[in-house]
Parts: sequence; C-alpha cells; structure tokens
Amino acid sequence: MKDAAMYIPTYQDMLDAHERIKPHIRRTPVRVSDYLNDLTGTQLFFKCENFQEPGAFKVRGASNAVFGLDDEQAKAGVATHSSGNHASCLSYAAMLRGIPCNVVMPRTAPQAKKDTVRRYGGRITECDPSTSSREATFARVQAETGGDFVHPYNDPRVIAGQGTCAREFVEQTDGLDIVMAPIGGGGMISGTCLTLATLAPETRVIAAEPEQADDAYRSFKAGHIIADDAPKTIADGLLVPLKDLTWHFVSNHVSEIYTASEQEIIDAMKLAWKHLRIVIEPSSAVPLATILKHRDAFAGKRVGVIITGGNVDLDKLPWTQGESA
Amino acid sequence: MKDAAMYIPTYQDMLDAHERIKPHIRRTPVRVSDYLNDLTGTQLFFKCENFQEPGAFKVRGASNAVFGLDDEQAKAGVATHSSGNHASCLSYAAMLRGIPCNVVMPRTAPQAKKDTVRRYGGRITECDPSTSSREATFARVQAETGGDFVHPYNDPRVIAGQGTCAREFVEQTDGLDIVMAPIGGGGMISGTCLTLATLAPETRVIAAEPEQADDAYRSFKAGHIIADDAPKTIADGLLVPLKDLTWHFVSNHVSEIYTASEQEIIDAMKLAWKHLRIVIEPSSAVPLATILKHRDAFAGKRVGVIITGGNVDLDKLPWTQGESA
Repeated sequence: MKDAAMYIPTYQDMLDAHERIKPHIRRTPVRVSDYLNDLTGTQLFFKCENFQEPGAFKVRGASNAVFGLDDEQAKAGVATHSSGNHASCLSYAAMLRGIPCNVVMPRTAPQAKKDTVRRYGGRITECDPSTSSREATFARVQAETGGDFVHPYNDPRVIAGQGTCAREFVEQTDGLDIVMAPIGGGGMISGTCLTLATLAPETRVIAAEPEQADDAYRSFKAGHIIADDAPKTIADGLLVPLKDLTWHFVSNHVSEIYTASEQEIIDAMKLAWKHLRIVIEPSSAVPLATILKHRDAFAGKRVGVIITGGNVDLDKLPWTQGESA
Repeated sequence: MKDAAMYIPTYQDMLDAHERIKPHIRRTPVRVSDYLNDLTGTQLFFKCENFQEPGAFKVRGASNAVFGLDDEQAKAGVATHSSGNHASCLSYAAMLRGIPCNVVMPRTAPQAKKDTVRRYGGRITECDPSTSSREATFARVQAETGGDFVHPYNDPRVIAGQGTCAREFVEQTDGLDIVMAPIGGGGMISGTCLTLATLAPETRVIAAEPEQADDAYRSFKAGHIIADDAPKTIADGLLVPLKDLTWHFVSNHVSEIYTASEQEIIDAMKLAWKHLRIVIEPSSAVPLATILKHRDAFAGKRVGVIITGGNVDLDKLPWTQGESA
C-alpha cells in the first residue's frame, strides 16, 4: 500500500460496506453497568464486538474486503499478516465465501487465536514477533499464493468496514460525548473517525493505548508516525504501528490518546469480566483502564467504549499467572 | 408457606409482575453461536440473565415481591434464605426501594456472592450448608426482624416474576421447540412453565440438574417430592429442593429433566465462556452440558437456554482448580 496513491475511504464507502457485510456480521448489543457507572462517575456504554462470531470487530473490515472482490480476484483468495484477530476474521470471511486465506502470524501469538484461524480454514505461516520479520515473511507468502493482500488496518476497505461499528453504536445510544477504542494500527479508530465525522461530529474520538506499546501516543504528540519494533504488552492486539492511512484519521480527527500500564489493563479487564459479565481480551480493557486513570477527563460524560474482541486463552488468565508461576 | 393455602400464580400475575418490575430490570439480550450450533446439531438461543445488574434472573422475582409490598409492610423490609443469587437480588431490589433486607446464607457460599449482598446493603447471617440449618437459622432471624419473608422460589410473587423472562424470550425469538433452564428449587422453571403454558403451549420445558444434586430428577421420576440434605455440586445455585408450589409446575408442565456430571458441567461452562464470550456461573452451564450429553433429544430443534447467572469468583475458576491444588 505504501507505494500506491493513498485512497481515503469516504462516508459513502462506509455505508456501502454496511450493506455488503450485514448478512455476514452481527449487530452487537450494548452493555451497561450501574456499578461501573458509579465507580467511574460517567455513563458508560460498551459495544460488544467480542460477540461477533469470530470474536472481534475485525470481521467487519475483513468481510468488506472479501465480499467486495470480483469473482476473478476471489479465485486466488486473500492473504494477510496479523497479530491474531484480523487473521481469524479474514479466515472466517474467506470461509463464508469459500475462497482460500493465507495468514502470517507471530509464533508468539496466543494459541487460542491460532486455533481459531485453523478452525476457519486459514493457512498459517509463522514469523518472529517483530514488524520487520512479519513483513518479510508476508512478502514471500504473498508472492507464492497470489492472494489479494488485505492489510489488517492500512486498507480503505478495512477502515470503511470497521466504521460500520460506530454507525450502529450511534443508532443504539441516545447521543455520546465520547467514543473510545484501543489503538494498535488504528483501523478501528480510523473507521470510527470516518463515521462520526459525518454522523456525529460533536462526538469526540479518544484512543487508548498500552504504555508499553505507546507508539500511537508518541506519534500523536510528535505530529508524525513513530514506530516501535517488537514492543511487549499483554494487549497483544495492539503491537502494530500506525501507517499512512490510519495516521491520516488519527492526526486529523482523534481528540486525545491516553495510556495505561500493564497492571491497570489487567485490573480493568478483570473488572469488566466481573461487572459486565463478558469475556474480553486485554486489548479491549485499555479504554476502561484509561477512564479509571484519567477520571476527571470523563466525569459526567456519556462515553461509548468499543469492546474490540474476546479471544483469550481461558487457561492462562493474566490475574492467575502470578500464582501459577 | 407450607401451612398456608397454596396460591398458584396465574398468567395475569406474570403480566402484572412484568409491568411492576420493568423499571428495575433489564430486558436481557439473546446470544447465539454458530460454533455451538454446529457442535450440538441444534439451533441454540441463550437468554443472558447474567446481564441483569446483580448478575442473575432472580432480580425479577425479588423485584416483584419488593415493589408489590404496600408502604406499611415495606417498613420492616424483607428477609430470606438463599444459596446466593436470590440474596443479592433481593438486597438489590430492597436497596432500590430503600428498605431493609436480611438474608441467611450458607457460610460455604462463594465469597463473590457474599460481597455482592453486602454491596447492596443486605445484612447476612450465616448458617451451615444444609437445608435444615438454613431453615432453623432463618426462623430465628425472621422472628427478630419481622421482615416480609420472600422465599427464594416457593412464593407466587417470585414465580410470577421469574416468568417474565420467558415472555421476553418468546418475543425475542421466532418460535422455540424447547426452553431449558437449570433446576434447583424450581423457581425459574416454574415461572417458565407458567408463562409458556399460555403464551407458547407447544414449546416444551426441559429442566437440567447436576447428577450430584438430582433431587428434582428423582422427584420427577417418583411422582412426589424427594429432598436431598446437603448435596454437593459445583453448581452452587442448585442445592435446594423442590417445594409444594414449584412441584405443582414441575409435575404438571415439565417434559423432561436431564442430569450432567460435575466434569460435564465444567466443560460446558468453559465452552460457553469461550464461544459465547460471556461469564456464566456453573449452574447456568448445566443445560448446555445436558444438551451435549443427550444430543439425540435435541438434534434439529430450536432450543432456548436461560443463562441464569454470572456471579463467579474469577480467582477460583473450576478448570484451574486442579492445577493450583
């Protein structure tokens, strides 16, 4: 994508995406908790994208790409690299259309995510857990298979697809002051900006990021993309850097990026499990962690939080790791 | 209740209950999973009562009792005995109305459930984990406080309240062949029978019970109430026996009772966490465990499963107990 002229997806692209993917995704429900509202002094609304069949919002962008291919393009299938959920969601969408899907994944990705990719018929090629290794391995795989490259986030089809989530969220709530999502590569945040800029321009978009993978935060403050190589965080969906297309949306429309520590993320994750009674992965807990940390910024506000995914290894929960070690 | 003339709640009582409690409960969503449908060969619909604010369906019956008291009766508050969720839900409803709530709980009840009762202002008196100790302790507490006795299940107000869940379930689904719920004392099953007998008489009601607390199963087969004293099962919400009022509904309207072993319950619980991505307590997993066990009885059917509660101790999950012991 780097070399191509950058196409910025439009609001109409998002509307078209929504029509295209509706048969293949769920209109996920919104959860509220009086307990968490009291605890934070805000009104929180959680959009449960962990309830998508493959367990993550990424089925939106992936389905938009897969079902947007013409029949000729579709024969060679699709290919991607991903830290996990994009891989399983692209495999899922490809399975629904009956076309091949090749994915490059870090060998350190959670076993649960690898299992999910394979269950949906995706073919995994493993790489080292660094951006450089991932990109080199992918170039080789794509050359061999000829599949259409669906980048996990730096792709207008993917961003337009992710933007359908914010459209539903606006319809399901009666006005939000803020919409939050975790930020890794920035696909969901970009889609959210794309949709809200037209549909609810008064609603601010705030991103949340692990302190230990804070390249988006540092990019945002510096005014240009800064990439980490091989960051480490429990929020394994947020390891990747911004790219030109997502940087466009982040730099133009995001109001603020907040960060949280590993322990704050784990605590927020456990709190969500306990009081929302939903299974969410660590990445999805980062917004709640930052709300608890930056209480004054959210006090009295109506805050929508996109719960991005729920694929976790139930045998290795972060709050029991200390005990079993 | 044993000595009073037994009042059988009617369909109109359920409709009245629904009007009374609507401001105090959530209309919980229904979850589906293609994965679990494929695995079981059925179409499964899960009604997420774990998403009620206090984490269990029992807020329906408890709210109906609390908000049905006249102002004079309400002054002395309410009192009950419960293995957990009825206690927290009655405390929650009493807190909403601003009246006292006294509860007798087995000292072996999960810490998470005790914490919840106290968070809602309920006053706990502990007893031994047997039906006999529970009833003796309660008699003393009730004599001291004078609170209106809201039995966890053998109370027409409670059964009418629980029946509101099945009403929503029918509205939310397009016809069900079977509705299932776990059975302990039989409150939810009775409310379900009450509602479906009028609203969807062609829908069969099937109960699910732990093998290690199978008094309802044995009662059903024998044709009269058989009670265990101090049964042991991980499904801690299902330890209590049937009583006259719930026996009326079970004996007249339930089609079948299936049982599952402890390991089958744990496996089904983990499966629900993984694929529905919701936090459910062991009791709520018993129906899915029996569906997996008695596959032929459910094959090709549209089966509604009431997920009764989601209050678990996240530090003590059953599938990690073996490892840490």
